[in-house]
Amino acid sequence: MNIENYSIDELNRLATDIREKILDTVSKNGGHLSSTLGATDLIIAMHKVFDVKKDPFIFDVSHQAYAHKLLTDRWESFDTLRQFGGVCGYTKPSESEYDYYVSGHSSTSISLAVGAAKAIALKGEDRIPVAFIGDGSMSAGMVYEALNELGDRKYPVIIILNDNEMSIAKPIGAISKLLSQSMASPFYQKFKAKVEKIVDMMPEGTSYMAKRVEESFKLITPGILFEEMGIEYIGPVDGHNIESLIETMKVAKSLKKPVIIHAQTTKGKGYEIAEGSKEHWHGVGAFDLKTGDAFKKSSSKSATAIFSETILEMATEDETIVGVTAAMPTGTGMSAVMEKFPERFWDVAIAEQHAVTSMGPLAKEGFKPFCTIYSTFLQRGFDQVIHDIALMDLGVTFALDRAGIVGEDGETHQGAFDISFLRGIPNMTLLAPYNEKSMKAAMYFAKEFTHPCALRYPRGAFIAEDGAVPAYELGKSHLLQEGEEILFIGYGNGVGRAKEVAKLLDKEVAILDLRFVKPLDEAMLSILSRKYKQWFVFSDSAKMGGVGSAILEFLSQEKILDVVLTSFEYDDAFITHGNTTLVEESLGLLPEQLAKKIL
Amino acid sequence: MNIENYSIDELNRLATDIREKILDTVSKNGGHLSSTLGATDLIIAMHKVFDVKKDPFIFDVSHQAYAHKLLTDRWESFDTLRQFGGVCGYTKPSESEYDYYVSGHSSTSISLAVGAAKAIALKGEDRIPVAFIGDGSMSAGMVYEALNELGDRKYPVIIILNDNEMSIAKPIGAISKLLSQSMASPFYQKFKAKVEKIVDMMPEGTSYMAKRVEESFKLITPGILFEEMGIEYIGPVDGHNIESLIETMKVAKSLKKPVIIHAQTTKGKGYEIAEGSKEHWHGVGAFDLKTGDAFKKSSSKSATAIFSETILEMATEDETIVGVTAAMPTGTGMSAVMEKFPERFWDVAIAEQHAVTSMGPLAKEGFKPFCTIYSTFLQRGFDQVIHDIALMDLGVTFALDRAGIVGEDGETHQGAFDISFLRGIPNMTLLAPYNEKSMKAAMYFAKEFTHPCALRYPRGAFIAEDGAVPAYELGKSHLLQEGEEILFIGYGNGVGRAKEVAKLLDKEVAILDLRFVKPLDEAMLSILSRKYKQWFVFSDSAKMGGVGSAILEFLSQEKILDVVLTSFEYDDAFITHGNTTLVEESLGLLPEQLAKKIL
Repeated sequence: MNIENYSIDELNRLATDIREKILDTVSKNGGHLSSTLGATDLIIAMHKVFDVKKDPFIFDVSHQAYAHKLLTDRWESFDTLRQFGGVCGYTKPSESEYDYYVSGHSSTSISLAVGAAKAIALKGEDRIPVAFIGDGSMSAGMVYEALNELGDRKYPVIIILNDNEMSIAKPIGAISKLLSQSMASPFYQKFKAKVEKIVDMMPEGTSYMAKRVEESFKLITPGILFEEMGIEYIGPVDGHNIESLIETMKVAKSLKKPVIIHAQTTKGKGYEIAEGSKEHWHGVGAFDLKTGDAFKKSSSKSATAIFSETILEMATEDETIVGVTAAMPTGTGMSAVMEKFPERFWDVAIAEQHAVTSMGPLAKEGFKPFCTIYSTFLQRGFDQVIHDIALMDLGVTFALDRAGIVGEDGETHQGAFDISFLRGIPNMTLLAPYNEKSMKAAMYFAKEFTHPCALRYPRGAFIAEDGAVPAYELGKSHLLQEGEEILFIGYGNGVGRAKEVAKLLDKEVAILDLRFVKPLDEAMLSILSRKYKQWFVFSDSAKMGGVGSAILEFLSQEKILDVVLTSFEYDDAFITHGNTTLVEESLGLLPEQLAKKIL
Repeated sequence: MNIENYSIDELNRLATDIREKILDTVSKNGGHLSSTLGATDLIIAMHKVFDVKKDPFIFDVSHQAYAHKLLTDRWESFDTLRQFGGVCGYTKPSESEYDYYVSGHSSTSISLAVGAAKAIALKGEDRIPVAFIGDGSMSAGMVYEALNELGDRKYPVIIILNDNEMSIAKPIGAISKLLSQSMASPFYQKFKAKVEKIVDMMPEGTSYMAKRVEESFKLITPGILFEEMGIEYIGPVDGHNIESLIETMKVAKSLKKPVIIHAQTTKGKGYEIAEGSKEHWHGVGAFDLKTGDAFKKSSSKSATAIFSETILEMATEDETIVGVTAAMPTGTGMSAVMEKFPERFWDVAIAEQHAVTSMGPLAKEGFKPFCTIYSTFLQRGFDQVIHDIALMDLGVTFALDRAGIVGEDGETHQGAFDISFLRGIPNMTLLAPYNEKSMKAAMYFAKEFTHPCALRYPRGAFIAEDGAVPAYELGKSHLLQEGEEILFIGYGNGVGRAKEVAKLLDKEVAILDLRFVKPLDEAMLSILSRKYKQWFVFSDSAKMGGVGSAILEFLSQEKILDVVLTSFEYDDAFITHGNTTLVEESLGLLPEQLAKKIL
């Protein structure tokens, strides 16, 4: 869309149209709502002042970039948002040349802008990277690492800080408090006038001192942090006044140095029901646009809900249970226990590295920490798992929600790699439940376990129906049924998948609930290798370095050469977004498809 | 050592004794020198004011903690420093009850202190965590994540910032500049006096304003950053005046809130030859105490030196070659090329996340980035490899130095896991050279390759002698020699090991230089599987998810059931410090030991 010649009135009307389009689509498809509504005016101004054809537009997380998608080439296709084969919910260069970079994990934008600025400088081009980042993303260490270089090397980079005081949940941490100090108070204005008078009163020749006194204003502005780091600060500005935003961005662009524009926006802007409401409207399923009520979803209990109930139950019984979330209290199901025991359960903001490491001393001091992080986000705390937990052999439980295919969020969020990256870590135990009772049993095992362990479970409900299970014992699997010739080995949600496939076959197959992929139940696998020569592995994880690979290592070590193993884990490719069933179908992982492959 | 009743004079004499002991030991054993000499007075004061039996002493990186080791229970054993079976060069709880936590990677101390403070608060105990951190560690994002929570929740935690303006190399970044603004200048002192007068002149009732003006001092102190984050700041103080350090620490302890003590120290303090000198004296091999000259080390060329020469050669020929190091210019061999092409090669300080991500846009814009990071430190940039490089399928080369056993640095630094954690990442290619010419060839391959790849090579020299090799082709191995029945598969330095073992056997074995563990040379492996039924894998990497595992996946996929594979990779345990040969012997990895196992 070419908005170069649009008047301010036309831009304001466009903002209304965009918000309507977003509301219409998200109410049908689900998606991110309040941040994208809040960011619309800023994004319009950004498109007016900067040139999306040459200036790298870098959206942090990019869940707020719907307006950008609509302004570039996706107005017509936008009704396919987050659907299989449709428009991705995040920026994606393979979808459009106007999406400069992939995003989905938080706090990468300033690093990317610094990288782009280096390239532009080397090429001697007249382009400027624009990073668009929400206040919630400001807590992660990456941002600070990037600002540290930017403030030192002073590349021309514009950072638009979209401050809706929201993050995903409520804002956490010192930075957030700093940002929320309002500039607009009458007190501040009066104070400023008075200090200016004092400066005027000072004798000639004290200009250095005067400058310093003037600078003392900054003490009570949120800008001080950035200016001390060498980044020019402008703000706070009204993030919904397109006209003044355009002026501000023009000024920032003209400075030819790193500038942060701090814009205050209202979450959910333009949709009264969502305005003022917080976490609920961050990411939503389909809902009734008139009432704001969600359309009913599946009634089966999600793994997250089971986690939530169980951790609350355990924490009530046992005072040594503590836990942490990195800005995902609702997503991880930690809200209830955090509310009941605020002194033992912490939200540390988007800061996975710190979340992991800070649990180590708690374990050392006799507590039992549950470090509750999505599979994909634990990638951010990987070194910390090795260096600060496993090397100390401490009893920290990593509760990995969203392990496996996550559906509409797609590539950046799939929980595919956790087994591959955690299994090689010494002292680490990996386990997975497959239904409600086994989830509780696995959590109770973890609570008593005094070494590091990681427990993975899917987004949404388990495939398998509930049913009683024996207690978890370290490295012990559970043989669910005997059969003839064929053995199905299920890990986590893979057990449910194995059961579904077994139902479709006209022969009796044995089904093993593996329970632990590390350590493996070597005794059981040895016994089974004598009776069953065809093994099929079911697990919602990458095949490379996954469950099948672990079992192959065992077979090789034991010189068991007559077992043919086939793994139905994920092939070596990033997995696209869309309805989970459609995505699984595209990968050939539906029970009917798997049954066919076996026959 | 109980120093409770020591006078200041006695403490000063103790400092001298400790420095002598450190110099004596490090000149014989090698080790970290300048930072530990600089930190000695601070550590003595810390032991005087805090109680190491109850207060968690948390040393960041902990290479500067020798004085702490000497002050606790390791004076007698200190001459075994960094030797196999001897005192570890880093803090290690399994070595002493006075070492609260493992450390070796940078910037974890404040997170650990926050975790310890949480535990102490829950237990209601009268203890206070003391984090000891160097200015070089302040650039990593983890520090900021931890300060963000600490400044918000205000746990009593003492942070001793040992500012020797050193980092490992020269200080980099905005934070470093901020810290180095000196407080002690006469101008500052005069200015402070004047402003105090002005404040006195102000009318009554303007106390708020007066406070603000006073606070304007902070603008020119390094403390502003911390105070804005909610951390009390004291400093800068003289880090070599034990008496005043004790007073300062007592004040800090009494505040019962988060306090940072900013102490300025001289690197190499007490050893004239090292004082003022920079990177060279950070970590040293054995040297002559009188002259400071290093005792001659092995004359064979290190892999790092080959990297250094080759990147310089490539960058001279090709303007698109760019690169980054995270505070390791000398360690990674990047110094020379950084000096010659400062506009294309960057040190971004200890900031692996930012280092990785910032290279993405450079690749997108047509450059060829070499992201040069030790194997163990890439763990810090793991999510960034996946989310910001591999997902975009960009031609960034990860040059992984110190892959395999690193010797004296030990557990925290072993480069054991890179294959396990990188292989499962889609779009990623993994390769390794085994001698000088293959290292060059591999680098030239990487330079032309337009997808992400990781190249691993050992600390020190390759095992194999140099010799001509064919150029690298994607996924192509190189059969070095044919044999009978037995096939040795070497990856990287494992090729040299395989050759050494082959020499010790009295039969002809085939030797394959695998070159790529991803993608595997499936055609070659298929052919070889027909002739050779006993395969032995040699690679300096963790067995779990390592090279052997990758080959097992291939054999399984191809239903090749008659090959018996044995992998001589590392078993599933953290590997201790010491002379590499002794460590390898303890693991049974010396050629003689391997030859015996094969027979």
